[in-house]
Amino acid sequence: MTHVFDEAIAVDARPDGVFHATTHPAYGNMVGPFGGITAATVLNALLQHPDVLGQPLALTINFAAPVADGTWDLHTRIERTNRTNQHWTFTISQDGATVSTGSAVFGIRRETWGDTEVRPPAADPATIADTAPVDFPDFIAWARNYDKRFVVGELVYESPNNDSTSTLWLRDLPERPLDYPALTSMSDAFFPRVFLRHGAYMPAGTITMTTYFHASPDELAAQGSDYVLGTARAQRFSHGHFDQYAQLWGGETLLATSHQLVYFKDPQG
Amino acid sequence: MTHVFDEAIAVDARPDGVFHATTHPAYGNMVGPFGGITAATVLNALLQHPDVLGQPLALTINFAAPVADGTWDLHTRIERTNRTNQHWTFTISQDGATVSTGSAVFGIRRETWGDTEVRPPAADPATIADTAPVDFPDFIAWARNYDKRFVVGELVYESPNNDSTSTLWLRDLPERPLDYPALTSMSDAFFPRVFLRHGAYMPAGTITMTTYFHASPDELAAQGSDYVLGTARAQRFSHGHFDQYAQLWGGETLLATSHQLVYFKDPQG
Repeated sequence: MTHVFDEAIAVDARPDGVFHATTHPAYGNMVGPFGGITAATVLNALLQHPDVLGQPLALTINFAAPVADGTWDLHTRIERTNRTNQHWTFTISQDGATVSTGSAVFGIRRETWGDTEVRPPAADPATIADTAPVDFPDFIAWARNYDKRFVVGELVYESPNNDSTSTLWLRDLPERPLDYPALTSMSDAFFPRVFLRHGAYMPAGTITMTTYFHASPDELAAQGSDYVLGTARAQRFSHGHFDQYAQLWGGETLLATSHQLVYFKDPQG
Repeated sequence: MTHVFDEAIAVDARPDGVFHATTHPAYGNMVGPFGGITAATVLNALLQHPDVLGQPLALTINFAAPVADGTWDLHTRIERTNRTNQHWTFTISQDGATVSTGSAVFGIRRETWGDTEVRPPAADPATIADTAPVDFPDFIAWARNYDKRFVVGELVYESPNNDSTSTLWLRDLPERPLDYPALTSMSDAFFPRVFLRHGAYMPAGTITMTTYFHASPDELAAQGSDYVLGTARAQRFSHGHFDQYAQLWGGETLLATSHQLVYFKDPQG
């Protein structure tokens, strides 16, 4: 049986080279689809391209307009293939209008010296089983496909916070082995930090998101379908926008880092 | 007299809509021009476009191939103009080959609730005058256009470090009032973190860089040509790549944040 995530990120490569995709109701958001599933669908298409080199290193997606529920077209372009990396650009259109643009870098991973300087947030995996999974409100459909167990920073309605940090255990529901599309989607699985600050839902939307993929294929295989520890926070809210940074950890392995710029409507305006 | 930075980022808007730019020897790097000056030149072109909306919010630039010294062409495209923001894509080409791609988001800043959650690194502006400015090696020409006074993380040859953090006072030399192109360039003014870890220069190059502009025009005006406090560090080095994060502060104001993915040649390979 096909996992709902794989149904949602499925693409149809047409003879003219354009990929055809369809939004999936299971990954709907307040307006249109969850941005993470759109990004994951793009990455899935690139991974299937016959000329792709290596694995994903970076993905930037710009959300220029809401994606309407229904079908969309993905135009991809290999801008340059070097010896060890490859640069892509892409455009998502609906009814001939551009709704999203972006770029991706793929590359070949080599064994080198390495080190992780940052540490995972304090969280004990032994407590996962005793931590109740949290449901988001019904109008956030996509969240029902994730098992979410908060360490800190669960949104409590009408309970504002001075710190926008959320740290949570996260995995697909039902379980699914981690791969690059799943990492892409999870890198957007943190609700807008302005909600946590104000203890409220309000109009907010990602304008642009960039994910760096640190995990090697071997590290993804070692992770399997275990819980990922995710953490996200904002640095600065001002003038109708804020930034939001995320890390996704598998044990001691930093699997991916992500950053996004988010629009918000003034909660005091 | 024109500041050397303004000479370097100058563009010529041709009747066909393509911008024409020329690399400037004062901003040369080990191979080709300093990436920060290329990014700043793109932003300068977009700012001059007659159809631009508001100010820069985000810029992503992908370095697909080294830019050769000499002239280059910048093709820009407005992908979508919304009520309060505008999405751009761009391509840099030389002799018909793509050497760089990217995207930018411009937007209108509104007065809203705001907060900065992170704090500037510990550094006392009263000590700037007593801190000797540091020169980089002669083969890093661009660095001579910055007055750089390190708080921590100066590169000492053959002196490796366990922490990749550099924090330094930074301003144009000669002084120049801060604007969005200058912020763009400064967001790349941190040498590759792998140099600091190993106390050595080695082949390394930015693959993709994203900068978020938090500063409003009023905040830039207030900053003037005072020193910016910059800080950068890596999160994970592995498999021939690492990420690098930067903050640029003007006093208590977080002016910009930036992140990049960098290729490096194995220092132990």
